[in-house]
Amino acid sequence: MNPRNETEEEVLLRVRPEKEEIESICAVAEMLLNAVNESGTARGMVVGSVARNTWISGDRDIDVFMLYPPELPREALEEEGIILGRSIASRFGGQFVEKYAEHPYVNATISGFDVDLVPCYAVTDSARIQSAVDRTPFHTRYIQSHIGGLEDDVLLMKQFSKAGGVYGSDLMTEGFAGYLCELLVLRYGGFSALIEACQSWRAGQTIDIMGHQGKQFDDPLVVIDPVDPNRNVAASVSRAKMGEFIELCRGYSASPGLEYFYPPAKDVMTCNEFEQILSERGTGLYSISFATPHQIPDIVVPQLRRSSAGIASLLERNGFVVNRYSEAMGDETCCLLFELLVDTLPPLCVHTGPPVDNAVNAGKFRDKYLTQPVFSGPFINGDGRYSVEIPRKWVSASTLLASSDLFSARLGKHVMKSMKRNCDVRVGADCWDEDFKDFLGTFFHKISSAVALKKQ
Amino acid sequence: MNPRNETEEEVLLRVRPEKEEIESICAVAEMLLNAVNESGTARGMVVGSVARNTWISGDRDIDVFMLYPPELPREALEEEGIILGRSIASRFGGQFVEKYAEHPYVNATISGFDVDLVPCYAVTDSARIQSAVDRTPFHTRYIQSHIGGLEDDVLLMKQFSKAGGVYGSDLMTEGFAGYLCELLVLRYGGFSALIEACQSWRAGQTIDIMGHQGKQFDDPLVVIDPVDPNRNVAASVSRAKMGEFIELCRGYSASPGLEYFYPPAKDVMTCNEFEQILSERGTGLYSISFATPHQIPDIVVPQLRRSSAGIASLLERNGFVVNRYSEAMGDETCCLLFELLVDTLPPLCVHTGPPVDNAVNAGKFRDKYLTQPVFSGPFINGDGRYSVEIPRKWVSASTLLASSDLFSARLGKHVMKSMKRNCDVRVGADCWDEDFKDFLGTFFHKISSAVALKKQ
Repeated sequence: MNPRNETEEEVLLRVRPEKEEIESICAVAEMLLNAVNESGTARGMVVGSVARNTWISGDRDIDVFMLYPPELPREALEEEGIILGRSIASRFGGQFVEKYAEHPYVNATISGFDVDLVPCYAVTDSARIQSAVDRTPFHTRYIQSHIGGLEDDVLLMKQFSKAGGVYGSDLMTEGFAGYLCELLVLRYGGFSALIEACQSWRAGQTIDIMGHQGKQFDDPLVVIDPVDPNRNVAASVSRAKMGEFIELCRGYSASPGLEYFYPPAKDVMTCNEFEQILSERGTGLYSISFATPHQIPDIVVPQLRRSSAGIASLLERNGFVVNRYSEAMGDETCCLLFELLVDTLPPLCVHTGPPVDNAVNAGKFRDKYLTQPVFSGPFINGDGRYSVEIPRKWVSASTLLASSDLFSARLGKHVMKSMKRNCDVRVGADCWDEDFKDFLGTFFHKISSAVALKKQ
Repeated sequence: MNPRNETEEEVLLRVRPEKEEIESICAVAEMLLNAVNESGTARGMVVGSVARNTWISGDRDIDVFMLYPPELPREALEEEGIILGRSIASRFGGQFVEKYAEHPYVNATISGFDVDLVPCYAVTDSARIQSAVDRTPFHTRYIQSHIGGLEDDVLLMKQFSKAGGVYGSDLMTEGFAGYLCELLVLRYGGFSALIEACQSWRAGQTIDIMGHQGKQFDDPLVVIDPVDPNRNVAASVSRAKMGEFIELCRGYSASPGLEYFYPPAKDVMTCNEFEQILSERGTGLYSISFATPHQIPDIVVPQLRRSSAGIASLLERNGFVVNRYSEAMGDETCCLLFELLVDTLPPLCVHTGPPVDNAVNAGKFRDKYLTQPVFSGPFINGDGRYSVEIPRKWVSASTLLASSDLFSARLGKHVMKSMKRNCDVRVGADCWDEDFKDFLGTFFHKISSAVALKKQ
């Protein structure tokens, strides 16, 4: 194994939890575990990075699973789980909320820790899991029994990915989950070897530690779950995020500086800077804001993506030219952003009709436009079809976006609902929004993390 | 056969040559024929519509072919043909020029007629022709021996096609040759039957009178030459002109008015009207004028078409949006015309580089743009490629067209030469040119002949 370099030793000093932190977190975990076990109905298990000894100093997350017998009906599991979660939360904390993933769980603040109390089934074989959370105990056991000696490498990998903006498997980040970081460290036998190996990854790269892959995936990165031959742990990693990770590894290899673990703070965009950039780019900027739908992010995020793509395609269909578009999800408000190279058009457009061969339809088309105001035509084009130049429906992108035609775009269901209730379309400098200044900054300063680090 | 309607009777009174005209044209033809025969070296033959009794009253074209023995070498044929042509032209006329198609011939004005004196080989079998003109005597003989009784129908078809703007097989017109008109009348047995039948033509329509088609053609209209199974007489007919002819037939069938043979004169466009149309359309108009290359139209016209298409594609590659383009060939000057929906663009453009997978090239790309002024990037796009927003080379179509980048477009060889010598790029109202007012009028009033007749 490569010896650690100075940077990595320095990083480890910062990210490795000290004895005191370990003791304090273990005490709380133990207390919660006992509370679950004392209930008599469920068995407690600490999962996640705390259980695996791979948490980064300062992390305050404790995941406690409440394992119920597999015979328990699903409804009963959900009900009992929530009741037990609530009672534990009230006993030790006070503040708690119910959340919902595949089924409901309790999220509480206990002794300063962010605690999830999650009911699941205690299945004995990972092939028999009844819901996705049932798989988590298997992940924890697998890592616990294999990671010995590589805990520091996992800490380095996690901190490296976080710093590079590629950590997190949520659909907005499309990056690397904690479990994926652990598996990659395991596969290559350490952080340095991982950094080295990733540099020659290609699209479709497949890693199958157990050699038991059960099906094909066409994701950019494929890491077969050691506890489930039919699951790609890296399914959430986008082509772009995979590429950024590869470039981060190349950059760090060439120049292993501390900035790859602790990047300089990004400049926050100001309204003045925003206006200056807009005027330099000379493009047309359009934002559409609306209330964030009350669904979990895993439902809302794909709908935001589909909606922005749908509106971009609506704009293009109407002759406008889209340079880029993006989307942001805030707690209260979502924002879709479109930058246009062309946002106004002349008042005419070509409308192509049926081929002359089709006497009936060609005749209808011709006669229709004989009596309507046209710019020219009908004429027969080089493909033998009737064609006519008629008034264009939308000569400016802003009137199109402000019209009900906006809803003819392919939009996500809940996004459409929220937009129909109320949506705020803004143009140019009016798109400035304090709440989305990071989003706007990233949009205009768009640059890969590895490139940004080199550019410092 | 359908009886003629009143319109057709009226047209025939105008287009059928009277006895006096026939006698006068036959006298001149006879005189020229004798002159060729008296030479002792070639045998004379009158070809074309005069020989076939299918010329329209007022036409002043007489085509006299000088048939030489097939053994004569090509060079000798050309030399002797030109000498004989010259001597006949000087003897009877005075004014003559040498022209060039597949080989040289003499064009003279004799007794007020426009006479072509064309040398060719007297081959006995159409399969043995040595040059395209050798085929003409076979066409004349074929029509002479089959057209009997349908001469008036050919006259109607020719006048109908001329009036509708679809007569002429030159590459600018892309319409119906005289021989094609004759064959179509033959095939359907008369003008009325032809008008009826054409209305259900489809792209790829094939007519093979002799049932001897020797190869496949993918032209819109295929009419196999009765004297050559491997030749499509309708090869020059474009999809658009075929469509216009079909629509003319439909229109005439529905309302058989005299205007289908004698259309009202088109309004000539004035400069004022031109400027008003430009401002109504709100588009960007660009013209490029240059001296007409000294080649025959069959060489120049395709080069003009290729050049305008090439420049349109250059404009599109640079982000401008072309609505329509066209080309005109005058005796002195050619004009390419481009109408743009978008002729100015913001100062940035996206430049996409290699995929991240390719470490060497990705690295070169990234490092190159690390040191250059960019609008954003380099960043990794959704396809895993590096991408960067750099200054756009041409923010206006006018500066692009006025630059030497114009010559990076795919241009015809002789057009390129002429344009490099001198070319005049104009924008907007400056595109007005008295010499091209018909061209500009047609461009903006673009309308199918049949539709224009209905719109009167």
